[in-house]
Amino acid sequence: MAKNFPGALSLLDDAALLDIDPDHQMVITNDILTAGVHFFENDPADLVARKSIRVNLSDLAAMGAEPLVYLLALSLPNTVDDAWLELFSNGLKQDQINYGISLIGGDTSSTPGPTSISITMLGRIRVNKALKKSNAKLGDDIWVSGNIGDAGVALKIIKGEVNVIDDKSKNYLFKRLHLPEPRLELGNNLIGIANSATDISDGLANDLNNICQASGFGAVVQGDSIPISELVSTLIKQTKHLKMSHIISGGEDYELVFTAPPEYTKNINTLSNKMGL
Amino acid sequence: MAKNFPGALSLLDDAALLDIDPDHQMVITNDILTAGVHFFENDPADLVARKSIRVNLSDLAAMGAEPLVYLLALSLPNTVDDAWLELFSNGLKQDQINYGISLIGGDTSSTPGPTSISITMLGRIRVNKALKKSNAKLGDDIWVSGNIGDAGVALKIIKGEVNVIDDKSKNYLFKRLHLPEPRLELGNNLIGIANSATDISDGLANDLNNICQASGFGAVVQGDSIPISELVSTLIKQTKHLKMSHIISGGEDYELVFTAPPEYTKNINTLSNKMGL
Repeated sequence: MAKNFPGALSLLDDAALLDIDPDHQMVITNDILTAGVHFFENDPADLVARKSIRVNLSDLAAMGAEPLVYLLALSLPNTVDDAWLELFSNGLKQDQINYGISLIGGDTSSTPGPTSISITMLGRIRVNKALKKSNAKLGDDIWVSGNIGDAGVALKIIKGEVNVIDDKSKNYLFKRLHLPEPRLELGNNLIGIANSATDISDGLANDLNNICQASGFGAVVQGDSIPISELVSTLIKQTKHLKMSHIISGGEDYELVFTAPPEYTKNINTLSNKMGL
Repeated sequence: MAKNFPGALSLLDDAALLDIDPDHQMVITNDILTAGVHFFENDPADLVARKSIRVNLSDLAAMGAEPLVYLLALSLPNTVDDAWLELFSNGLKQDQINYGISLIGGDTSSTPGPTSISITMLGRIRVNKALKKSNAKLGDDIWVSGNIGDAGVALKIIKGEVNVIDDKSKNYLFKRLHLPEPRLELGNNLIGIANSATDISDGLANDLNNICQASGFGAVVQGDSIPISELVSTLIKQTKHLKMSHIISGGEDYELVFTAPPEYTKNINTLSNKMGL
């Protein structure tokens, strides 16, 4: 349905592009979070709000764009009370300040179903600079930001499939699940360096595969070259049924996976050191 | 939360405005349609799709804007089958052609709740030309397009509160409910004529009240000056519990209500004749 509109990028990229002035394109993305599917009904409302914003910011980061404004479509069951709404609203405000963005519109609806949050995020990028999935080149190195698998392991703890006893470890993993850090600065700095990029929402394996499919190449990844936290490394050793295959397919990482020519290795390492990623 | 961003219009108008180039502003609106709240689960999927698009186009019409592209956030229960999706998709395609718009992105989610459709529509208007709710002036005349109440009466037929036997009448009223005509050409032509405008989604009384509140004025409306179809006029005479108060508070009209200085009466009548409204 979108094939006639070039900026839609065939609906396959992290966000759509719209020409706005001779120098800039608008970058537009949308994500739905549904209670019982993407978060738990009893998750703290402020964290739900902030994650709703951040998963959209992560899509802009994957294009290298700067976020501007957003719209909020909120479907609420009658079980939601004023306390929940106030906490949710506080969460939105907090991340509006953190990321310098404004709410400019939206809609609310009652629903006999679960709480559902659909955010449309608009950003801006200089023309022809957006990082795309489809632009990987033969011989590119594959890079990822941060550690992979923390959020997926946190989900396994909630489901009772992995045991973590100490609070510090739990807090680290749960923060990685509930409050992902959209890699906006990294995405912006990868313009002119990376040939392709996407954010890891469905697991490293899936999202890297999306780049390969969009670009028409295959990829080779060594298991031991995938960055994981010391904690997850320890848990894999301790937990018989937790394997590397779960880490690369766990989802919810919201890190960036990108490809770049080998000659940019030094630039990327410098960026990495500067940002502590 | 939006007070720092001028284009949000305090979230009170039909759509938000975003500067794009020195000559244009982007106009952005969002509406949720939830099964069981805004439509019936067994309504034909193509009509549901087309109404989802049209209620958003109606918001752009109320600002005088030209529609461009949209994003679709679709939450689907597992009861939705391929046939429903194909029909829904056909409905989208049909109105994409009718209104010259393209789908540029969005998201889909499974849900244990009802089908929910959230559309974000983007359009364009020349800078400082958008019709707002807040700009009505003392002494303005109040105008509405088309007939008021047809859709509300159709809802009353579905609920069994009004009896209409002949198919032609039923078809007319149901079409007015399921396939509202967004008044895009009218809205565009009202630039430079109307001081304020909004679309009638919550009933003439409510939406006119929104203009009054936003502009800081009161309004006087004579009951017999409200345009209703001959059919609805006949039904009011025939049906004891159907009154003019239901017509002005019925909602779903998606006509425009606007205010203009008396000196534009001739221009508006000429427009009205030209468009058959």
